[in-house]
Amino acid sequence: MQPLSPVASGFVLADVDPSSSPGVADRKRAEKELAKRGMELADLQERLFAESTQDGTRSVLLVLQAMDTAGKGGILEHVIGEVDPQGVRIHSFKAPTAEEKEHDFLWRVRRELPRAGQIGVFDRSHYEDVLIHRVRGFSTLEVIEERYGLIADFERELVEAGTTVIKVMLHISSDEQKSRLLARLETPEKNWKYNPGDVDERMHWAAYQAAYQIALTRTSTPSAPWYVVPADHKWYARWAVQGLLLDALRRLGPQWPAADYDVEAEKARLART
Amino acid sequence: MQPLSPVASGFVLADVDPSSSPGVADRKRAEKELAKRGMELADLQERLFAESTQDGTRSVLLVLQAMDTAGKGGILEHVIGEVDPQGVRIHSFKAPTAEEKEHDFLWRVRRELPRAGQIGVFDRSHYEDVLIHRVRGFSTLEVIEERYGLIADFERELVEAGTTVIKVMLHISSDEQKSRLLARLETPEKNWKYNPGDVDERMHWAAYQAAYQIALTRTSTPSAPWYVVPADHKWYARWAVQGLLLDALRRLGPQWPAADYDVEAEKARLART
Repeated sequence: MQPLSPVASGFVLADVDPSSSPGVADRKRAEKELAKRGMELADLQERLFAESTQDGTRSVLLVLQAMDTAGKGGILEHVIGEVDPQGVRIHSFKAPTAEEKEHDFLWRVRRELPRAGQIGVFDRSHYEDVLIHRVRGFSTLEVIEERYGLIADFERELVEAGTTVIKVMLHISSDEQKSRLLARLETPEKNWKYNPGDVDERMHWAAYQAAYQIALTRTSTPSAPWYVVPADHKWYARWAVQGLLLDALRRLGPQWPAADYDVEAEKARLART
Repeated sequence: MQPLSPVASGFVLADVDPSSSPGVADRKRAEKELAKRGMELADLQERLFAESTQDGTRSVLLVLQAMDTAGKGGILEHVIGEVDPQGVRIHSFKAPTAEEKEHDFLWRVRRELPRAGQIGVFDRSHYEDVLIHRVRGFSTLEVIEERYGLIADFERELVEAGTTVIKVMLHISSDEQKSRLLARLETPEKNWKYNPGDVDERMHWAAYQAAYQIALTRTSTPSAPWYVVPADHKWYARWAVQGLLLDALRRLGPQWPAADYDVEAEKARLART
């Protein structure tokens, strides 16, 4: 059972405790379930792929947004990493290139969508265009205001075309981020993961939380809902995101497709070779 | 230790026994090593990625070629699947699209190369342009002849730019292919994996072996060698390909990069937030 509710009317981000772990008793239980359910997730994705070879329309898209160090990479490694890599399409959105800037903000996103049968993952996404853009003033408020509507239209279009859209904000506390950044500084093998720019962004913590509050409530829809996943405990965030994916795939209920050729005739043809 | 030698002068494909398992005692041992070495492979790839954040040049490219059912998919799932999916770039080359046909045969290949820090995998490749093209007469022999040289030039260029190129032919016997195709026909959940075209290709078995013999000997070079991996035993092929990747990454010996910022100053700056 998925204990997390989608963001809906009246949602207040500040009310979500990043250190909570709704829906699972403790770490041991969560880790045990993570391992066991990984196989089910892989199996369902393979069925979705099999189905797509005949009826190529359905896919799943997981959008991951978070403050630095919240654990997006760990989700990719430990949750998505359990699925056959052929069935996964991951894209990390960085600062837009010169070419990308020449187009509207959804142009580069459309190019990285999962194909039928795949689980797509966006490590950051088109939401940066209403998050960092709002916080750092890269776009005017008027432009940002328009984007909420454009995003909702875009996602509705995706859903209508057969993509199940799951949007996740990994929610960590400011204290937890501080301690994770410090660990990157104190451990030589982790030094490369630290970027001085991370502290620059950290200084805008409150503004980011406010920008998330607006983006989450403006763009969470029944067909493309947002989930805020408490992420101070990595084991919890992984368990919860896996659960959201699993719920989505179970609802899709993909089936092994029947042969679209004559099985007996092919057996005979093969036997003659 | 990697027991397989690269294809060199005097190599004869027909002399390689597809059911052999050079370099490992038995299945149990191979499966145990596969699991253990998966972690080392993942660790080395992460180091390669870490290194690339400062010195973005080195990558690894695994080219997989084989007759149908030889186990390319299993290599992707069980060998590549052990690596963090963020560190992997897989591309499956299908029959070229109309757009791809408008360009030279290497155009679409150049677009799918691994980025620095990644392990790239080609599931089929530019070698189809000298294999199926030779067997089915899609190009003239003159054109195919020219392509061996163009491929060697292209791969030399890749190696000089920092990519370690490993080319693998998974080598199965005709009997083993027959039994794997039959299994796809006899097992309803596997029916979708079977395509009547597979038997059409199978009828050209000898011509394919001849085309491989020529391609392997013409394009195996010290810097971009071919390995023929006996593949009648899936456990062996996975163990052997993992070994080739591991050898390549060990030779690269990627190291965690030192911080390119002032660690103590950053600690102080972080402490003030």
